[in-house]
Amino acid sequence: MNDDSTSRLVAGIRAWIRDAPAGAQLPSTRQLVAEYAASPVTVQKALRRLAAEGLLETRPGVGTFVRTVRPSRGPDFGWQSAALRTPRSVIPRIAGPLQTAPPGAQALHAGYPGPDLLPERLVRAALGRAARGAAATSRPPSAGLQELRAWFAAELATSTRQDLAPVTANDVVIAPGSQSALSSIFRALVAPGQALLVESPTYWGAIQAAHQAGVEPVPVPVASDGTGPDPEELDRSFRETGARAFYAQPNYANPTGAQWSLARAEEILDVVRAHGAFVVDDDWAHDFGIDTDPRPLAALDDGGHVVYLRSLTKSMSPSIRVAAVIARGPARDRILADRAAESMYVSGLLQQAALDVVSDPGWRTHLRRLREQLRDRRGLLVDSLRAHAPELQLDLVPPGGLHLWCRLPDGTDVDRLVRDCANEGVWISSGDEWFPAEPSGPHLRLTFIGPDPAGYPDAVRTIARMLAAQGS
Amino acid sequence: MNDDSTSRLVAGIRAWIRDAPAGAQLPSTRQLVAEYAASPVTVQKALRRLAAEGLLETRPGVGTFVRTVRPSRGPDFGWQSAALRTPRSVIPRIAGPLQTAPPGAQALHAGYPGPDLLPERLVRAALGRAARGAAATSRPPSAGLQELRAWFAAELATSTRQDLAPVTANDVVIAPGSQSALSSIFRALVAPGQALLVESPTYWGAIQAAHQAGVEPVPVPVASDGTGPDPEELDRSFRETGARAFYAQPNYANPTGAQWSLARAEEILDVVRAHGAFVVDDDWAHDFGIDTDPRPLAALDDGGHVVYLRSLTKSMSPSIRVAAVIARGPARDRILADRAAESMYVSGLLQQAALDVVSDPGWRTHLRRLREQLRDRRGLLVDSLRAHAPELQLDLVPPGGLHLWCRLPDGTDVDRLVRDCANEGVWISSGDEWFPAEPSGPHLRLTFIGPDPAGYPDAVRTIARMLAAQGS
Repeated sequence: MNDDSTSRLVAGIRAWIRDAPAGAQLPSTRQLVAEYAASPVTVQKALRRLAAEGLLETRPGVGTFVRTVRPSRGPDFGWQSAALRTPRSVIPRIAGPLQTAPPGAQALHAGYPGPDLLPERLVRAALGRAARGAAATSRPPSAGLQELRAWFAAELATSTRQDLAPVTANDVVIAPGSQSALSSIFRALVAPGQALLVESPTYWGAIQAAHQAGVEPVPVPVASDGTGPDPEELDRSFRETGARAFYAQPNYANPTGAQWSLARAEEILDVVRAHGAFVVDDDWAHDFGIDTDPRPLAALDDGGHVVYLRSLTKSMSPSIRVAAVIARGPARDRILADRAAESMYVSGLLQQAALDVVSDPGWRTHLRRLREQLRDRRGLLVDSLRAHAPELQLDLVPPGGLHLWCRLPDGTDVDRLVRDCANEGVWISSGDEWFPAEPSGPHLRLTFIGPDPAGYPDAVRTIARMLAAQGS
Repeated sequence: MNDDSTSRLVAGIRAWIRDAPAGAQLPSTRQLVAEYAASPVTVQKALRRLAAEGLLETRPGVGTFVRTVRPSRGPDFGWQSAALRTPRSVIPRIAGPLQTAPPGAQALHAGYPGPDLLPERLVRAALGRAARGAAATSRPPSAGLQELRAWFAAELATSTRQDLAPVTANDVVIAPGSQSALSSIFRALVAPGQALLVESPTYWGAIQAAHQAGVEPVPVPVASDGTGPDPEELDRSFRETGARAFYAQPNYANPTGAQWSLARAEEILDVVRAHGAFVVDDDWAHDFGIDTDPRPLAALDDGGHVVYLRSLTKSMSPSIRVAAVIARGPARDRILADRAAESMYVSGLLQQAALDVVSDPGWRTHLRRLREQLRDRRGLLVDSLRAHAPELQLDLVPPGGLHLWCRLPDGTDVDRLVRDCANEGVWISSGDEWFPAEPSGPHLRLTFIGPDPAGYPDAVRTIARMLAAQGS
């Protein structure tokens, strides 16, 4: 293939074919020899190559023609699997909570609050203003807009214990959503192949991000009563695995809804410090407190042990992919370097719009109204479960967050239940996706953020009916 | 720390300290023993731990007090480096082309076209419309908006050879910018630690993305005359390394400006096919043709060998972080899975705005005007170099793209030259950043997209003066 004259000839004839009608006869070998000043052997070689590619067909004794029909071979990409080798990690199917339910279905699986729970007016106005401002056509710094970083830092600083040094804007790195932030945090903090301790069950996106980052998620069980992980279990896991990082959601954990007590948070931090380790405090539901306020773990530490993550995507709008990582010391530098290598910077337009929304007095008003909406919806779903599906065990009415976590009777075929309910127009999530290893039992996660809360009683009756059908 | 009663005591006293004024005296050990039903040993242990944290101070013979001053220790995050271990890859400093020049400086290092080269009116109008539409508050599919994917597919299909099956919207994955896309492509196509062939010199962002993805970039030299990589060298590199992927910029390469001829493109593809490999066709400058039109490599293959990448960020606006990866077969599935794990989805608002801009007749008008602007600026910078800095060797006036690539006299201290020029208000980029291994010589990359083309002659005179100063 490094024969230059053949290549030149192939390229020339290719160009000719491109412009020729299908079925056209090629110039004779003699003409091609003359035209390209090439030997007959070279001409034949070039024609064979083009014929092998399906561009030409030779009719013996007649001549060579541009193929009349497009080669009929179907796509065969089998060679790719050899080139690609075994995947780096299990390739996830599209996760349940990201699936789009058909119109009219009851979306108890939804991962993102619907428009009626978003500050829609504020978001549209802020995006409109940003579209007219400098952010629409300029590039922000890699770490993010200074003012937005200062806002995230101030939010955390207000709840930080008085005897501790509060974080500053310099400790903040803006990321395009918390999923991207998790990937960067795990890559930055954990060496490839090393263990990352995670609650079990825990957020499925974190499990995916860990696999993608090439680190091994090691489950630490959490109690079903909402008290969080047992510090002794955590200590044992650190010792056994040599892990230097623990990923957790101390406030309204996804999926259990647990909020750690202050005492428990201090205990966990003590264990983390004793192992010279990091704890990733994923404060995903910071804006979704119902009965309590969130208590960031990062507010209890200034020794650089807590890497804090907060996103605005769920509370503001799915279109505003803006999150903040807050970390100190070399950890922060490594996270920023990873973000810069991964995406260089986050759209300044989205950052400006986010800053605009949180700076508006209407943001606080929205959050207060949201709290009442979530309280009502949670109550409606809990009441529906208690009235119509007592066999779904609810260990905890979560003090915040967007969902309930229910244990199903032992032996339930959860995948079948999910399918059967979807056929009846009720979309629910199998709890299996939240377990880094074996599930502790059959569970459902039911969110109360879909478009039709009035339909909860009917939806729960459907679940109960499909569950009963498995027993019969 | 697994002594539960100590932890309980520590947590209790911590809470007490939080509410107590600085300098307050703690209850006596005896009182604490009684209050917490704990042994005196446990109480002492708890007090020692809190004292070690700097929360308490003990005055012998007097009692224990809440510390009056915040602990004076400066931040000491030294423990982090032990926990973090050696970085996964060299941590890049903020790359030269991303640095922000002070106002008034001549930005010949700029990586992004300034507002006068952007379709600013179209962008603002499209963002404004998107802010009012459904995209502002909804979540698009992981692969991207169907219509936008169809547009990217159609763009490539129009230049695809007639005898080949054109790509469709299903082959397209939307990513938040080409840097994110590169990371995903490398992670998806190349196993960790394996080789990825790259042109040398090549785009520095691709080198960073390769390191971040944990793959080893292996340089394949390119000719300085603009003909691209030598197929024989490429063939040899594939054989020697066992690589199954080659990253290249066949049109207006960054930094050399080279555009492969059609014959060269076919030769390269033949080598790639012979090794059952992928070639990543980074068509970064698709909208920046000046003397020629871009010829995507992907337009010459339907066998799944070419993974195509095109971004709109540079030609539309830095705030519209939207790029497309076009691939077929399992490669496409793996890239989509990586994108979903990395960021779940790309802001629908930005996708809708991008679609709106490219659907506007003004987009084509803008691209035609841009071509003339780039031609003028390129001419001005080339003329300035020839007139005022003949010692900067320009092997190729690039037929497209945003920059010139100049070789400096052997022995030039490029870093010093960059610093000296910056001190004089002229920002330039050292060519070293574009080399995956040793630079082939001292180079500068000079872009012609900054805000002040009229200042090119003066800027080039400054470079010549600083260069001359090194010789003296």
